[in-house]
Amino acid sequence: MSLVKIGHAELGVRDLDEAAAFYIDVLGFVETAREADRLYLRGVSDTDHHSLILTRAEGPELIHFGWRVDRPEALRELEQRFRRQGRPVRWVSASEEQGQGEALRVHDLCGHPVEFYYSMERVESLARKAHLWRGAVPQWLDHVALFTPHVDAGVTYYQALGLHLSEYVDAEDGSGMFAAWLHRTSSSHDIALVHKPQPGMQHVSFWVANALQVVHVADVVADAGWAACIEFGPGRHKATNSMFIYLRDPSGNRLEFYSEGYWIPDMDAPPIHWTFEDYKREGRLSWGERAPASFFEPIPVRSWT
Amino acid sequence: MSLVKIGHAELGVRDLDEAAAFYIDVLGFVETAREADRLYLRGVSDTDHHSLILTRAEGPELIHFGWRVDRPEALRELEQRFRRQGRPVRWVSASEEQGQGEALRVHDLCGHPVEFYYSMERVESLARKAHLWRGAVPQWLDHVALFTPHVDAGVTYYQALGLHLSEYVDAEDGSGMFAAWLHRTSSSHDIALVHKPQPGMQHVSFWVANALQVVHVADVVADAGWAACIEFGPGRHKATNSMFIYLRDPSGNRLEFYSEGYWIPDMDAPPIHWTFEDYKREGRLSWGERAPASFFEPIPVRSWT
Amino acid sequence: MSLVKIGHAELGVRDLDEAAAFYIDVLGFVETAREADRLYLRGVSDTDHHSLILTRAEGPELIHFGWRVDRPEALRELEQRFRRQGRPVRWVSASEEQGQGEALRVHDLCGHPVEFYYSMERVESLARKAHLWRGAVPQWLDHVALFTPHVDAGVTYYQALGLHLSEYVDAEDGSGMFAAWLHRTSSSHDIALVHKPQPGMQHVSFWVANALQVVHVADVVADAGWAACIEFGPGRHKATNSMFIYLRDPSGNRLEFYSEGYWIPDMDAPPIHWTFEDYKREGRLSWGERAPASFFEPIPVRSWT
Amino acid sequence: MSLVKIGHAELGVRDLDEAAAFYIDVLGFVETAREADRLYLRGVSDTDHHSLILTRAEGPELIHFGWRVDRPEALRELEQRFRRQGRPVRWVSASEEQGQGEALRVHDLCGHPVEFYYSMERVESLARKAHLWRGAVPQWLDHVALFTPHVDAGVTYYQALGLHLSEYVDAEDGSGMFAAWLHRTSSSHDIALVHKPQPGMQHVSFWVANALQVVHVADVVADAGWAACIEFGPGRHKATNSMFIYLRDPSGNRLEFYSEGYWIPDMDAPPIHWTFEDYKREGRLSWGERAPASFFEPIPVRSWT
Repeated sequence: MSLVKIGHAELGVRDLDEAAAFYIDVLGFVETAREADRLYLRGVSDTDHHSLILTRAEGPELIHFGWRVDRPEALRELEQRFRRQGRPVRWVSASEEQGQGEALRVHDLCGHPVEFYYSMERVESLARKAHLWRGAVPQWLDHVALFTPHVDAGVTYYQALGLHLSEYVDAEDGSGMFAAWLHRTSSSHDIALVHKPQPGMQHVSFWVANALQVVHVADVVADAGWAACIEFGPGRHKATNSMFIYLRDPSGNRLEFYSEGYWIPDMDAPPIHWTFEDYKREGRLSWGERAPASFFEPIPVRSWT
Repeated sequence: MSLVKIGHAELGVRDLDEAAAFYIDVLGFVETAREADRLYLRGVSDTDHHSLILTRAEGPELIHFGWRVDRPEALRELEQRFRRQGRPVRWVSASEEQGQGEALRVHDLCGHPVEFYYSMERVESLARKAHLWRGAVPQWLDHVALFTPHVDAGVTYYQALGLHLSEYVDAEDGSGMFAAWLHRTSSSHDIALVHKPQPGMQHVSFWVANALQVVHVADVVADAGWAACIEFGPGRHKATNSMFIYLRDPSGNRLEFYSEGYWIPDMDAPPIHWTFEDYKREGRLSWGERAPASFFEPIPVRSWT
Repeated sequence: MSLVKIGHAELGVRDLDEAAAFYIDVLGFVETAREADRLYLRGVSDTDHHSLILTRAEGPELIHFGWRVDRPEALRELEQRFRRQGRPVRWVSASEEQGQGEALRVHDLCGHPVEFYYSMERVESLARKAHLWRGAVPQWLDHVALFTPHVDAGVTYYQALGLHLSEYVDAEDGSGMFAAWLHRTSSSHDIALVHKPQPGMQHVSFWVANALQVVHVADVVADAGWAACIEFGPGRHKATNSMFIYLRDPSGNRLEFYSEGYWIPDMDAPPIHWTFEDYKREGRLSWGERAPASFFEPIPVRSWT
Repeated sequence: MSLVKIGHAELGVRDLDEAAAFYIDVLGFVETAREADRLYLRGVSDTDHHSLILTRAEGPELIHFGWRVDRPEALRELEQRFRRQGRPVRWVSASEEQGQGEALRVHDLCGHPVEFYYSMERVESLARKAHLWRGAVPQWLDHVALFTPHVDAGVTYYQALGLHLSEYVDAEDGSGMFAAWLHRTSSSHDIALVHKPQPGMQHVSFWVANALQVVHVADVVADAGWAACIEFGPGRHKATNSMFIYLRDPSGNRLEFYSEGYWIPDMDAPPIHWTFEDYKREGRLSWGERAPASFFEPIPVRSWT
């Protein structure tokens, strides 16, 4: 049994109309469906029903993110594994989340609200509908980055679910890891874990076609009057080789658009190792201005237990 | 007295709704105004009222193109010059062409319908409204290319109006020029003249931001179901160093989107000289498939005399 | 047991100095090692010892291509599987191919010379050495495309080795498949199979960073005096959504540089189905000039039995 | 009489070998000639002998910059004009500056060391030698930006020499201008003037092909170990619509690489007007991190009087 990909994330937004104006009209996300309290969005290359759900909430929040599993039976196996560990689980019935089959929701080892699912309704890709593209032209949900007090345990947990460590940073005091990137797909990472005393979300990240498009995201949001939403970038992370820009949506959720990275189909390549000093000196930032303090503030994650 | 730039072109189209669907909805031209029989369009960086007029007509046609002159008095000077030469002239009153001041229309030495004008209403540039861009994102009208039986005479005529020869090709039989590019702005050419027994239009050309955008034009029209409108390219002309794509609009007018070229603020740089053989071998095409026969068919030009 | 990726291909070239001039000086491949009769090359993002071997030979030829397997034991399992099928196998000892561990060479079901290997010496990536990049800037070996009389059997064979069908085209007479694309990595395909009465190679393909870089390949080879080596493109395959250019190296081997494609981490997504007519109409080519007849000529594959 | 373009700038550098390593090996400038104390460089699209001279000096310094004039006689006319104004002038004989004809050197109204010249030896353009490009791929010298205590007087001075005001910013106290951009070519500016109590140089700026290339400059210098030389950017100036990056060379000279801007062949378009507040809020920076304090430090200009 193995995870396949992070297929979607659900974020809390204060105002659904405001969120639609930002995500659809400015950033160019594609709308699949709209409910009273929820928007189901996707990138132009997505063939799944949704890769982003925006849900009315009191403020910015990671409500859950969803890992696709490689076989339908994997959901029962995971249920047993979590029950054995004494961890709370909850079944989400088919279509409770529009377009999705039955799903298992848990709090992972680090306390983040994770969903495992197998089946998702397929929809039309707009990959070759370039005449309909607008704004940032997000292609697909690429990864989620989380704050956690337990980076090492998180790495072990995800390795048990089939992921492979691609890069990691030593903790400042030498005890374990400060940060880790793990992948199951052929990209540099599907999930990133960064040390922080309390669990939280760092960001959700959407792939764009190339580095020029990362710059275009900055132009698009600034031209639309949203320059202040740019929190960090454009810039280049040397770790993971990402060309990045980070935005805060109108509710305060942190969103990345990124491109380039690297190609790593091998699930056993030796991970790239950063000392804390090297990472701070050049790993986080190959060039570009230092991240502002706000960039390190965790976005709350929802607990349902 | 000198010309400043080609500010606009007026093309005949069979069906205005069809033209609007193609030029605005697919290619992303910006609409300034619409009359019963005419669409006034511009590129995203244009600050003039229009750079392209589409006018209901029986078929594809260059109805006229307009040179901006550097002083209001230049129009009377040009009138006298043309009258002395026994050439027909016609005054176009202010606002007969929406947004434009008084203008002088003539048939130039080569028989093409040319307009000289000085004043044009200014409108908002969308250069920094990237959130509103769509499709090909045409920036501005860059140049017009004409077929003429009199390339040498055309060069002399335009040199007298302040233009400078940037490149030329020997005629196949050695008698004069087969083709010539002249510029007044800092780009490689504002007008191109190519030998053909009868006068006609080769194309009107709009600048796009970079070579990637030339490829994007191909994607946009193909994805919108208009792949058959691509006549030639994307490719690279070595003469003028243009990254190009040529389309036929639904009426049959030939439209170029291009980028790169080169920078030539000097009005006395020695022109680049091509033998007919070199031009055919590599000048027309640095790489890419040879132009189809249809590419050399002239678009009719309108005579009002 | 599963395949991981196509890690390298070995091509025959007539003249090693000429090949070095083309692949290294013009195209910008990175040289790892040079032997009397062989060049070991890699792309700028490769971390394996080589992804391309050029070997002195009588003419263009696919000498072999190498699949990396996911576990060392897989090599013995594969040996047994092929021996059971009565197919010839040959062990390649460690370092017989520089940098590579022990490997198993077979003729696959379609008659192509395939190598399976697990271990390969790791070398420095130049992914973040942009100051050293030149020419086409190939990133990594992406896929190999083969001609075969047995497309359906080839699909079955590769599915048994862990690959997943992403797209396929019906045979013209309705009996099975004309073409098929299969992937194990998260990209649209790691191998393509196209019908042809005799086995042969269609091309080996290297990834470049974006669609602009595909155009840059055309500029680079044309500017270096190698315009005639461009066989097809730049253009867009609608099937696999590839932005492509195909070159013939000085010996006649067919090389693709490509980008974009799409992202497909799911190993069970329903494949995209093309009728033969749709594929010929728009699947092979979204826009761009039709492929020349030479594009369908197979490159010989080497038999060692 | 009119100026044509800024054709070259001469900067002081502490160490010529170090400068060659930075400008040629990392940034990809093309070397035309080397003397004991001077390097003559150009961009890949330049056809003049040089657009940048690096001269051994005690530290960073604008030694002079050169305006090309439109007629040989203009040099005598300018001499008389400056002598009438009681300003010192000096003739630079032909070839004193390699490749250049006779030239007139003055301190302009603002105290900057300016040279006027007409003739310059022509050399081969590498515009279509893409296989030889490396690093930043500078295309041509685009503009020079100066600090001056007399912005208004500088504008009047350059207008008398044929330039046209494209944008300007009100002084903070309302008395005249804080900054001004003037152009003679079809670009947004050939020279920029910014208020500062003492004259100095802000930067010299080289054009690169597109916004992606501006990002590539950052990658190239960072990958070459020169990340610390990036002073400001990549970012977007809303005034002049420039996509920019500013570097400090190893001696401390400030160098910009920029692209996009806009097209303005009209020498009488109404200039864009910025209040001091609007300019500070969004004119200087559409998005990106605020400029560091060092960005406002003037580079010394050489006086020879």
